[in-house]
Amino acid sequence: MSDRKEFRDLASPEAAREAIDSLDIGGGTETVGLAEARGRVLAERVDASVDVPGFDRASMDGYAVRARDTFGAGERDPAVLPVIGTVHAGEAPAVSVEAGEAVEISTGAVMPDGADAVVMVERTSERDGDGERGGDGERSVAVETAVTPGENVMLAGADVAAGERALGPGTRLTAREVGLLSALGVESVPVRARPRVAIVSTGDELVRPGGELDTDAGQIYDVNTYTTAAGVGAAGGEAVVYPHVDDEADAMAETLTEAAADCDLVVTSGSTSASAVDVVYRVVEERGELLLHGIAIKPGKPTIVGRIGDAAYVGLPGYPVSALSIFRTFVAPAIRAAAGLPEADSATVTGSMATRDRYEAGRRRLLPVGLVTDGDGETLVYPVDKGSGATTSLTEADGVVDVPADTSYLSAGETVTVELFSPDVRPPTLLGVGEDDPALSRLLDDLARPRYLARGSRPGLRWLRDGIADAAVVAGPVEDRPDAVELGGWEREWGLVVPAGNPADVAGLADLVDRELSFVNRTTDSGLRTTLGAAMADLADERSVDRHEVTDAVTGFDLDRRAFESPARMVAAGDADAGLGLRATAADLGLGFVSVGTETVRVLAAPDRTGKDSLSRLEARLADLDGYLDGLEGYDAE
Amino acid sequence: MSDRKEFRDLASPEAAREAIDSLDIGGGTETVGLAEARGRVLAERVDASVDVPGFDRASMDGYAVRARDTFGAGERDPAVLPVIGTVHAGEAPAVSVEAGEAVEISTGAVMPDGADAVVMVERTSERDGDGERGGDGERSVAVETAVTPGENVMLAGADVAAGERALGPGTRLTAREVGLLSALGVESVPVRARPRVAIVSTGDELVRPGGELDTDAGQIYDVNTYTTAAGVGAAGGEAVVYPHVDDEADAMAETLTEAAADCDLVVTSGSTSASAVDVVYRVVEERGELLLHGIAIKPGKPTIVGRIGDAAYVGLPGYPVSALSIFRTFVAPAIRAAAGLPEADSATVTGSMATRDRYEAGRRRLLPVGLVTDGDGETLVYPVDKGSGATTSLTEADGVVDVPADTSYLSAGETVTVELFSPDVRPPTLLGVGEDDPALSRLLDDLARPRYLARGSRPGLRWLRDGIADAAVVAGPVEDRPDAVELGGWEREWGLVVPAGNPADVAGLADLVDRELSFVNRTTDSGLRTTLGAAMADLADERSVDRHEVTDAVTGFDLDRRAFESPARMVAAGDADAGLGLRATAADLGLGFVSVGTETVRVLAAPDRTGKDSLSRLEARLADLDGYLDGLEGYDAE
Repeated sequence: MSDRKEFRDLASPEAAREAIDSLDIGGGTETVGLAEARGRVLAERVDASVDVPGFDRASMDGYAVRARDTFGAGERDPAVLPVIGTVHAGEAPAVSVEAGEAVEISTGAVMPDGADAVVMVERTSERDGDGERGGDGERSVAVETAVTPGENVMLAGADVAAGERALGPGTRLTAREVGLLSALGVESVPVRARPRVAIVSTGDELVRPGGELDTDAGQIYDVNTYTTAAGVGAAGGEAVVYPHVDDEADAMAETLTEAAADCDLVVTSGSTSASAVDVVYRVVEERGELLLHGIAIKPGKPTIVGRIGDAAYVGLPGYPVSALSIFRTFVAPAIRAAAGLPEADSATVTGSMATRDRYEAGRRRLLPVGLVTDGDGETLVYPVDKGSGATTSLTEADGVVDVPADTSYLSAGETVTVELFSPDVRPPTLLGVGEDDPALSRLLDDLARPRYLARGSRPGLRWLRDGIADAAVVAGPVEDRPDAVELGGWEREWGLVVPAGNPADVAGLADLVDRELSFVNRTTDSGLRTTLGAAMADLADERSVDRHEVTDAVTGFDLDRRAFESPARMVAAGDADAGLGLRATAADLGLGFVSVGTETVRVLAAPDRTGKDSLSRLEARLADLDGYLDGLEGYDAE
Repeated sequence: MSDRKEFRDLASPEAAREAIDSLDIGGGTETVGLAEARGRVLAERVDASVDVPGFDRASMDGYAVRARDTFGAGERDPAVLPVIGTVHAGEAPAVSVEAGEAVEISTGAVMPDGADAVVMVERTSERDGDGERGGDGERSVAVETAVTPGENVMLAGADVAAGERALGPGTRLTAREVGLLSALGVESVPVRARPRVAIVSTGDELVRPGGELDTDAGQIYDVNTYTTAAGVGAAGGEAVVYPHVDDEADAMAETLTEAAADCDLVVTSGSTSASAVDVVYRVVEERGELLLHGIAIKPGKPTIVGRIGDAAYVGLPGYPVSALSIFRTFVAPAIRAAAGLPEADSATVTGSMATRDRYEAGRRRLLPVGLVTDGDGETLVYPVDKGSGATTSLTEADGVVDVPADTSYLSAGETVTVELFSPDVRPPTLLGVGEDDPALSRLLDDLARPRYLARGSRPGLRWLRDGIADAAVVAGPVEDRPDAVELGGWEREWGLVVPAGNPADVAGLADLVDRELSFVNRTTDSGLRTTLGAAMADLADERSVDRHEVTDAVTGFDLDRRAFESPARMVAAGDADAGLGLRATAADLGLGFVSVGTETVRVLAAPDRTGKDSLSRLEARLADLDGYLDGLEGYDAE
């Protein structure tokens, strides 16, 4: 075990930020067309090379005149002028205006020579009559207002004049700037290049999403590659995804060297096993420089910062939650800066801790938290800590609370500031906790931004009792029910899921006890498990034996699985003869089913939250369940 | 004029929003790979189809054991267990753990059969000695702590269980959701399709940016195409840019019909001339439905909403400021909704009006405004109204104030709420107004987010006096100088810009008076014009005549141009014999130059704003000007 690297001299977060900021990660210039310019950052000033408008332009529909000819005109005493021609937008005037004449003109058209103002059409009335200059034309116009020289005319260059500074370097291009550039006739602009960021996940156990997983050999899907790539894109960089590499020295050295030659920044993740770190060290030390390893922050301690060749290098931890936290905190700001983007908008929310939360001292902690609004509209903050190995922590949290190294706990009710993951984050409208159920999944699809934690019935009741959840969804018999408002519910048929055709001819629970059948149960958090327990107790009563006598006789009664489909899936995989489950699940997976009974699923709301819109909407949907139960075998509205 | 369409029955903004919301603009589904999923919106629920992790996984580096074997162990009384093998991440365990044995295990590795807990490596010490099961192996480990069953183990499905609801429809995919999808092995997801939006600019006078402009024929660059396309992209749509069409009936009908067949929404702009509107009407009425024309809002009255075939149709006004305002207010929200995106973040700022601003009553107005921070850190709001034909209004404003139809003025000092164009908008750090100057352009490039309005010296002094601008940049003699702090300045050589080689042999100002030469002046707002006026007055004094006698003798003395390069450009174009300008401009454009004198350019700061960081930075740069003047002929630090 002597070759295990440990991270003993941890850098402070401030030092880590400085180290990453000291790296050079791009900042070149490229030229893009206006159609691709949105969101990019100007690399150089753009001066106008033309006048806008390029000519004296009518800014109203009406008549081009010499202003002097309208002096004194009014509705009662209009100036009647012959109309000697027309100018439309996009054509050169064919006539010029002499004293006492008018030319009909469209908005945007070139002012004819001799005219210095436009009378808007609404202040005129055209008359038949002699008009054309020197001939027997027919048109004249009665001008019912006086105009001043220049009125309703935009002079050449009045908007932007040639030579004028139009946009400065560093300007982020939105529709508005694209508009100004269009007006100047600029078709392409020099912008800051997007830093190229190589993404290399490492680990013998990784399989790219979409591939086949050998779970017996401990394979898992590669989470960090696409997650980091998405983060790079959001920070204004260009992600270059490399195939993940095994912890094998030569292959990793080759990939890192190639990536460093091609990109501005190389980001690896997961190189924390002993052999991998050795390889990274060797490459960094041979071809670059190691700036730090280890940051005094949680999650994310095992982080490496350095250079490989001319490229910057950051080694992220392997656990997705840690990797993304370090990326967001340290790497994304450096990419944004290199791309010329302003610092990311951050948004904070103040709330109070819903529970007490304790910490080991020693490292600053970015505590992932979820948010929920209580009945008074106040924000409650609860920690989301499923371990850094859990990817669901990524989506069950809304932001982080920055807990200093010397803080050993946050008290319930303590006011904390939550930095949202981004200003786009909208906390959920509803926080539900409880039983997993296919009808519930459909109901949730019909609500706007619900958060539902399928932890089981017991945790649901606990979260409700603790004043965190808005609603709990519980199945089966409920002991010690908290004060709650029942919003509705449904019945579901449960029993034993068996292979298709029921080859072992399982007849019911008694067979589990009396025959050599392997069984898969659900965890005790599950309401269905409680329902099974009650049925087993009934069976024991029938036989006048102790409950444990029957359950101990079931092979696999303690083999419990968290999710409602898991036992059925084990049956489908041939790993068990029967599993605790629902008729609907068996039908869905094409398995056999031995019915044991029905149980009620109830949706319970916290009494002080019933004013929340989301609970009203949920209640309304519960009142008309048929659509949601459609096609679910064994389901019935209560 | 009888065929001019007018917009008499204006729809209320609310009715316009309803009309646009009633249109069906897409909402289909497409499948994208994880690498392209960022920013997209899930069209359907994603349930987990695998357990995560897929096996019972060690969550620490250490030793897999039976927990029972560690009960009672501590530092003083460790449990010494033989180490019978090793399991790395990504491999199937080759051994199983019997009572009294340990297996070395890496984070992420599969728990070997028989083991139910992991002792973290930090709480162990490995010893040499007999270890291998049944043989003369060498390894054993002293376990210095007790662990409970399940400790440091993540059970299969504990993160996400197969069948569990993972992400609901309508979820916007960020790095975090991409992470969860990766963990589930999902490689592609069903997302809301981006509404396809056809963009058709209309007008005989339009030329696509990059093309050659015939200004004599009233041609202008097409601003709305790329501007609207950028807006469509920002709203989550896919812009399909069509070539702009003339106001010719058949071509326009054909393009609109084709666009409607190919896209979900057709957006035209500029079809407000009589003939174009007729064509649009005909197409909409023949092939669709007209829902409204004309909205009671300013800018943007001439807007059309309807259907063409199966596509939605919106006709925007032609003026870019109006077009973008209507797009932003009415069209972008509809595109976002169709794309499944939440309503755009909006951000508001409260400030006080810097000046009184009057309105014609009758139409609700979205008044474009700029923001500046005064010396007390308070936000001042000033109207940006260069006419809806001015594209610079696009970039000189930071947001809009919503002024109700019945409000006829806003008072100076009145508190107003400004809706920023987007939450990304950062008001400028510095507001300068005054003379246009090439050295100043370079200085501005070196400041972060300055806004400079090159209106000329006189407006600069006025904005300073009115307490709006932070700084004024003035050239030449200053009469009636307001109370101000001079931050610095420089000298520039001015005179007459003439064709290269000075073919007319112009010697100085007297030649303009005495010879038949055509001249181009600057506007009276320009400091350079004031300097010229003073020189002309000196000439008149020399000749003992009235000042007007000399200026009246100059052909073109009243032909004034706004920007500092404009007279020189007219000389370059052969439209004048001499123009008022700078030596630097003549050198830059390869023209001849007849020196008349030098003038000082001064940067004046508002005394109550000198505490602003941006002014300190400007002053520091002014103290060391050499780099900025480099290569500018006729420039000298003061």
